[in-house]
Amino acid sequence: MRGLFITFEGPDGAGKTTQLGLLADALAAEGYDVVRTREPGGTRISDHIRAILLDPAHTEMADAAEVLLYAASRAQHVHERILPALAEGKIVLCDRFIDASMAYQAYGLGIAPETVRAINAFAAAGLKPDRTYMLDLSAEAGLERLRRRAQGGRAQGLDRIELKRTDYHRRVREAFLRIAREEPERVLVVDGEDTPERIHARIRDDCNRLLELRDIPRTRREQA
Amino acid sequence: MRGLFITFEGPDGAGKTTQLGLLADALAAEGYDVVRTREPGGTRISDHIRAILLDPAHTEMADAAEVLLYAASRAQHVHERILPALAEGKIVLCDRFIDASMAYQAYGLGIAPETVRAINAFAAAGLKPDRTYMLDLSAEAGLERLRRRAQGGRAQGLDRIELKRTDYHRRVREAFLRIAREEPERVLVVDGEDTPERIHARIRDDCNRLLELRDIPRTRREQA
Repeated sequence: MRGLFITFEGPDGAGKTTQLGLLADALAAEGYDVVRTREPGGTRISDHIRAILLDPAHTEMADAAEVLLYAASRAQHVHERILPALAEGKIVLCDRFIDASMAYQAYGLGIAPETVRAINAFAAAGLKPDRTYMLDLSAEAGLERLRRRAQGGRAQGLDRIELKRTDYHRRVREAFLRIAREEPERVLVVDGEDTPERIHARIRDDCNRLLELRDIPRTRREQA
Repeated sequence: MRGLFITFEGPDGAGKTTQLGLLADALAAEGYDVVRTREPGGTRISDHIRAILLDPAHTEMADAAEVLLYAASRAQHVHERILPALAEGKIVLCDRFIDASMAYQAYGLGIAPETVRAINAFAAAGLKPDRTYMLDLSAEAGLERLRRRAQGGRAQGLDRIELKRTDYHRRVREAFLRIAREEPERVLVVDGEDTPERIHARIRDDCNRLLELRDIPRTRREQA
């Protein structure tokens, strides 16, 4: 028996985390066994790696080190958490996955895409998402949202990746859209400027079709 | 102008660190500009990665994560420290490098050697040592030395890698010898059971020939 692996991708500030939470709650209420997770992170070792990656003080980080740290965090996450949950037939919802490495590292930093792809195929033991919801947002709109969020009290302010320049974030967005064009059967692009409610409705519609198609079992009764 | 990149390899307990120190002191006394470093580690970011890798509590670490963390530490070390020093014409002495990843991860853990090689070629931007001194020691003798050292007061005891079983350490030793057979022009094997003085004399002899051949400049006068 095998579960369902769904990832949320898109530029910073596009609303991935909100949408993942809405879908997780909806699926859990319907009685599905849902695992919520995120990258980088998701396990004890991956969280240690996350802390190195996102520390704003680490301005000296080499591009190759960044690629390899994201991949290391992913390898631990896939082996320790995602694969076991899928083997138990669960639905795994993951905030960012390999597409983020392709967008931020291959296209954002300018590292050969085939190198980043090969390293991540090794890290993820070949695992690919069954479905990816890609929240699209212009680089400017995404950064504006992040700045407002940081001023609004998120304690640490912006992290090392968020602090990079606008043209970097523009390349990242273009890369996400390119991935969506290359794999239309896996990736569903959703307009991140739409309201959270409408975005959620669209995602939930698509996800319901997928659950039927794949015959994913409910482990509990639907909640009243 | 380009310096000289020398690595020390071999099983745990073979005397790498001692021999690196003896050669560094001898070269510095002769007026050469020497950089001493080690892997995993050697930079601030690499030291954070080292702490994750060697923590004995991390028994759940996935093999792929281990490979990628060593490579990430190496990438930062090569870009931030080794390449700049070589560009300034310095002699870089490094305790462990890619051969250790081939021995401990590819052959020790049983991961495809071509995968580990490709990931590390990316990490090291293609950099290879000019000379590698490989201290050979049986797995049993190496582990016996480590145990004595740990009892003798090394505060933390044995680390996560040192605690693996003897057959793993035996595969590691065989892998080191295989690398030496494959690249005899780069790797000099030295018997780690010999006395530290005799091992040092052999290494220094070889290194002197290399310095002449490569015409490495002295930056200070020889010390009296």
